[in-house]
Amino acid sequence: MDLRYPNGKQYTMNKTGINKSIASKSISYSNRGMTLEDDLNVTNQYYLLNEIAVIHKKPTPVQIVHVDYKSRSTAVIKEAYFKQPSTTDYNGVYQGRYIDFEAKETNNTTSFPLQNFHEHQIEHMKKVVAHNGISFVILRFAKTEEVFLLPSSDLFIFWDRMLNGGRKSIKKEEIEEVGHPISLGLHPRIDYIQTVKKIFTI
Amino acid sequence: MDLRYPNGKQYTMNKTGINKSIASKSISYSNRGMTLEDDLNVTNQYYLLNEIAVIHKKPTPVQIVHVDYKSRSTAVIKEAYFKQPSTTDYNGVYQGRYIDFEAKETNNTTSFPLQNFHEHQIEHMKKVVAHNGISFVILRFAKTEEVFLLPSSDLFIFWDRMLNGGRKSIKKEEIEEVGHPISLGLHPRIDYIQTVKKIFTI
Repeated sequence: MDLRYPNGKQYTMNKTGINKSIASKSISYSNRGMTLEDDLNVTNQYYLLNEIAVIHKKPTPVQIVHVDYKSRSTAVIKEAYFKQPSTTDYNGVYQGRYIDFEAKETNNTTSFPLQNFHEHQIEHMKKVVAHNGISFVILRFAKTEEVFLLPSSDLFIFWDRMLNGGRKSIKKEEIEEVGHPISLGLHPRIDYIQTVKKIFTI
Repeated sequence: MDLRYPNGKQYTMNKTGINKSIASKSISYSNRGMTLEDDLNVTNQYYLLNEIAVIHKKPTPVQIVHVDYKSRSTAVIKEAYFKQPSTTDYNGVYQGRYIDFEAKETNNTTSFPLQNFHEHQIEHMKKVVAHNGISFVILRFAKTEEVFLLPSSDLFIFWDRMLNGGRKSIKKEEIEEVGHPISLGLHPRIDYIQTVKKIFTI
């Protein structure tokens, strides 16, 4: 079941709730039908169990309008709406430092559309950078299963280019040039902390 | 409208969604009918605007079961359930450091019941401390409007005492002894960052 809610995001229902949908995804060893979100959840679980970092995905923000409670123990939300997130999806702590990131994927093969991000998320990232937090995005090209870590400071350059009338996406060559490829593994699946250690001052 | 959901929390509906309910709260200058959550949201907004820190409350975790979407622009959640939060409610960054806390209030006047916290929240706090994050709880005695910051490391001592068969609450004298009072103001309302600066190594 697919749905699109006001901020333009697409969701598909699965057993755990909702996940970003991916059309016609290829199934391979490294990614057996899992979304980027699934992969990151498994990775964060690995970091937690192995005492590497404490990173969680924030819950989907929902505006609750009506709750039905037949008994004290069962409250059913009967009417609610998706709210625009005011921050990024993932944050937590690594060696005392604040880590904050957003993860997005595209079915495009030659560029990454900037419409995947919202103005207020960019504003949030700028605040995190200003407060000396570690801020980045994880970008995935779904067709080729390539994953890149792009520091927010680099994302801002492409964002500002768009605001100044430039292209509405980041060329893949640009991501390859300024971003950092993350090779996929099994444990953990997307070892972004290794990349964080290399490129940020901890 | 009050409801109690499986984890025992009580909620009352208001215009912005749901908030923890407070029975028979006194109205005063410092707190005109606002909950601790409202006060902290206003405080965090102040920190954000004045570039002091970037701290947000996490959305209430909800398990979405059924979504109705009549048109592309309106998705209505028709069935959802409250989920037990797996972390604390507030986190963010202050001078590069990770800050993480939970805020609770009681109508008791002589002690603070430990049932306000859940086992997995304590586990989360222990992980944050292990990873050198700044972890604490903000405790409010609603009747007297006294607010204290208690470092998690101190909370663990009272929690372990309970697990070892001791009392299920923290005596108010104990909180006065090891906690740090936060005086209430207008801008910001609950200036917990001042206390954080004093008692944690940034």
